[in-house]
Amino acid sequence: MFTDEYFMKLAFREAEIALEKNEVPVGCIIVFENRIIAKAHNLTETLNDVTAHAEMQAITSAANFLGGKYLQNCTMYVTLEPCVMCAGALVWSQVSKVVIGARDEQRGFINKKLTLHPKTKIVFGILENECSQIMKDFFLDRRL
Amino acid sequence: MFTDEYFMKLAFREAEIALEKNEVPVGCIIVFENRIIAKAHNLTETLNDVTAHAEMQAITSAANFLGGKYLQNCTMYVTLEPCVMCAGALVWSQVSKVVIGARDEQRGFINKKLTLHPKTKIVFGILENECSQIMKDFFLDRRL
Repeated sequence: MFTDEYFMKLAFREAEIALEKNEVPVGCIIVFENRIIAKAHNLTETLNDVTAHAEMQAITSAANFLGGKYLQNCTMYVTLEPCVMCAGALVWSQVSKVVIGARDEQRGFINKKLTLHPKTKIVFGILENECSQIMKDFFLDRRL
Repeated sequence: MFTDEYFMKLAFREAEIALEKNEVPVGCIIVFENRIIAKAHNLTETLNDVTAHAEMQAITSAANFLGGKYLQNCTMYVTLEPCVMCAGALVWSQVSKVVIGARDEQRGFINKKLTLHPKTKIVFGILENECSQIMKDFFLDRRL
């Protein structure tokens, strides 16, 4: 039951909530021992704050839940490849695993030649089509 | 009066406050039209939050003051070269100028081959010795 697809669907639901708020639709959850300990969606417009990416909020929230700043034995599920800022935060967090939906060729950390923490396992392409499509639809709508 | 040295001294005062709290001593202020609109110091230990770097808090605070998420016509003074996370946040913020005290060869964004926003002017080496020394003293104390 607790597959990467299962948890990514919950992250995707967060992206849908962002979309309903006219935010760039990115969602994220953090799982510890098969429990969701943080969920968040992008709120940069609502909060007028460029740092309010889904991942940043989720990292803060998960650390708060755990009572420690390191996210050992935690997995982040995020619908879009993290940007430089969020990748930097993930390095500091020492999160154990990051599962990514869609790639972000332009803003993602991979094409910036950055890596996450040596302890962090990265999995790509879970629900990739849905995670990619919701972004495309959002930006297409804004251009019309 | 309102020189880079003047404002960096105020950022350095923030680093000293961090030191008093046994935090890695990094301080930051953001200035808009010669007014300080944000000041912050590293609080990662106090808040149990890897995202609580001085720069991240200052960006959020300045955007809140301005009522908009872009830090146009703003200058950030920070005692230590920003890390990858903070550099990523600065790119999103489109801040006009960043004035840096000490370099951070290991964790700073420069050696990661990252750049800030094309609109952002970068100035190095203001109060470099003080900003560097407070870091060295902090880590030396922790090793004893």
